[in-house]
Amino acid sequence: MARFPLPPGSTIGVLGGGQLGWMLALAASRLGLNTAVLDPDPACSASRVAVRTVTADYADPEGLAALAQACDVVTFEFENVPAAAVEQLAALKVQVAPGARALAVAQDRLEEKTFLNGVHAPTVAFRGASSAAEAAEAAAELGAPCLMKTRREGYDGKGQRWVEHASQAAAAFEALGSRPVILEAPADFVRELSVIAARSRSGEIACFPLGENHHENGVLRRTHAPAAAAPPLVEQAQQIAARILSALDYVGVMGVELFELKDGRLLVNEIAPRVHNSGHWTLDGCEVDQFEQHVRAIAGWPLGPTAALARTEMTNLLGSEVDDWKKLAADPDARLWLYGKGEPRPGRKMGHVNRLQPLKD
Amino acid sequence: MARFPLPPGSTIGVLGGGQLGWMLALAASRLGLNTAVLDPDPACSASRVAVRTVTADYADPEGLAALAQACDVVTFEFENVPAAAVEQLAALKVQVAPGARALAVAQDRLEEKTFLNGVHAPTVAFRGASSAAEAAEAAAELGAPCLMKTRREGYDGKGQRWVEHASQAAAAFEALGSRPVILEAPADFVRELSVIAARSRSGEIACFPLGENHHENGVLRRTHAPAAAAPPLVEQAQQIAARILSALDYVGVMGVELFELKDGRLLVNEIAPRVHNSGHWTLDGCEVDQFEQHVRAIAGWPLGPTAALARTEMTNLLGSEVDDWKKLAADPDARLWLYGKGEPRPGRKMGHVNRLQPLKD
Repeated sequence: MARFPLPPGSTIGVLGGGQLGWMLALAASRLGLNTAVLDPDPACSASRVAVRTVTADYADPEGLAALAQACDVVTFEFENVPAAAVEQLAALKVQVAPGARALAVAQDRLEEKTFLNGVHAPTVAFRGASSAAEAAEAAAELGAPCLMKTRREGYDGKGQRWVEHASQAAAAFEALGSRPVILEAPADFVRELSVIAARSRSGEIACFPLGENHHENGVLRRTHAPAAAAPPLVEQAQQIAARILSALDYVGVMGVELFELKDGRLLVNEIAPRVHNSGHWTLDGCEVDQFEQHVRAIAGWPLGPTAALARTEMTNLLGSEVDDWKKLAADPDARLWLYGKGEPRPGRKMGHVNRLQPLKD
Repeated sequence: MARFPLPPGSTIGVLGGGQLGWMLALAASRLGLNTAVLDPDPACSASRVAVRTVTADYADPEGLAALAQACDVVTFEFENVPAAAVEQLAALKVQVAPGARALAVAQDRLEEKTFLNGVHAPTVAFRGASSAAEAAEAAAELGAPCLMKTRREGYDGKGQRWVEHASQAAAAFEALGSRPVILEAPADFVRELSVIAARSRSGEIACFPLGENHHENGVLRRTHAPAAAAPPLVEQAQQIAARILSALDYVGVMGVELFELKDGRLLVNEIAPRVHNSGHWTLDGCEVDQFEQHVRAIAGWPLGPTAALARTEMTNLLGSEVDDWKKLAADPDARLWLYGKGEPRPGRKMGHVNRLQPLKD
């Protein structure tokens, strides 16, 4: 097993070589660490800057063994890592961070909300259902309208439907593939915030300033950070994040998505046990960005500072918006991050732009 | 030939895969560009983040051909690129930036100072010599003490000697290998400054704030930036840099080392036609660092902004100082750049640390 802190020259393994894996690799390199990536696509973004790319499915035992052999610690850029993969890596005596418990919680929306409420991280009211009849019963109990989501998989608005009347619940259940679901009461929120939190191997916790997030068609479009927020709100968010990370004995960076209600209370929408799109502003707005913070945590290094250097607006470049690169390159205020993906399919995250302004007093 | 601006997905070639090539590759990647590197050492720093590493001597025709084939433009991280290599790349129709003229000037200290004076960039008084007799004559004309340097090669204080009396000049010439030399009058300077300047393919010029440099044993130890300097001094430095870059029809970043005299005049010590150690502070102290600026220039993109976000102190980690990485990792003020080099030989540049402070008003 690796000894922590990992010295420079060590290798971080990343399951998934998309833009998050790529930015993790850039951060690791700055600290003298190497990155090996496992991804089914040999031309994935992270392969451009990895010392090694293992081309394999995430559940492929040979690929995982090759990754394990090359690495001192393994992390991931997406939460739907097959449980079998984590078990295999553990059997190979490679540390996986964040660990199996965080993945299990984040992969199942019902487990996630149950866990959150158990650690006094408030959420909307919810019910689980495993059959059309249970779904109808749950909708009646919870009240309509409510939002039905598959317990597993689905992201960026996929795998969910609104149930306007309890009588529609059974049909919605079938439309979602007759898979186990969770029904959620709507959140009457005034805005969506997120806190990017990190926990080190020694249990130290650090949170970046809050981001205020704006979505379009279920996809993050823009984050403003630090979000305008009174100190008690910031403290509430940080305490929620700290309770979650501590309860999971978490190591690494987590994105905690929050709803701010009219009365100032915060509800947790969902957690992402990884670096998070709403933390991309830290790449230009902070001394240490979320990617370096994650690398520091999983490598057993102390966490870095999290204060903002500037007010930052992060805008995702989706699909063909990346074709504007010439205009963006000529914009002195646009800090460009282009992910090196081939095909700008509609809605695909191709890059992002950070724009900095001086901090307000 | 490549068409500029190079679109994302294009590949930058770098001759030399040390820390400068590595940081160029990191910057290129952020902009969606790939890097191929040519270096005799397959384990060079830049190979960790390059899409391709060609392991070959810098003058190896096959290696250069392989690099040329992989790249849309080629640049270099050191000025002593063999002229034959640049000629071969040109014959292969690959753009090299900066170009052959800048390299020729920077490779020969006598040509360099002659060129500089020709564009009204002042230097110390100097004389060339190609024999022991000429060296003695030059020392007598120039007056002793004076500094004798080989016209070519030598860096970080290597390949030079002080001549205390004109009578020692012939012996010094022989001690330096009886090679063509330049003799330089001493500069009675109050401090050493540098300006990191960039020129785009369209002739646009941008300078970062001045750095104040402190050397130890002929090696850069520390840069403070922006250097405390009245606006006329800054303007003088920027005008000198602009004259140099324009006269060379230069494309890319150049480091211009300056002596500040007691009377406020600036002399050019030397020019480095590449990214420069005294510009590493820009990695954390500016929105766009010197590496991104260089990539922007050679790729035919517009230059980025150069204002400082913070006062920054850059300290080189030399030799075994890199063994302090644990202490530095725990220092919240230390932004760490570790080059991933194997052997911490005495004096070898292994990494650097940037420390940020708010800008003074």
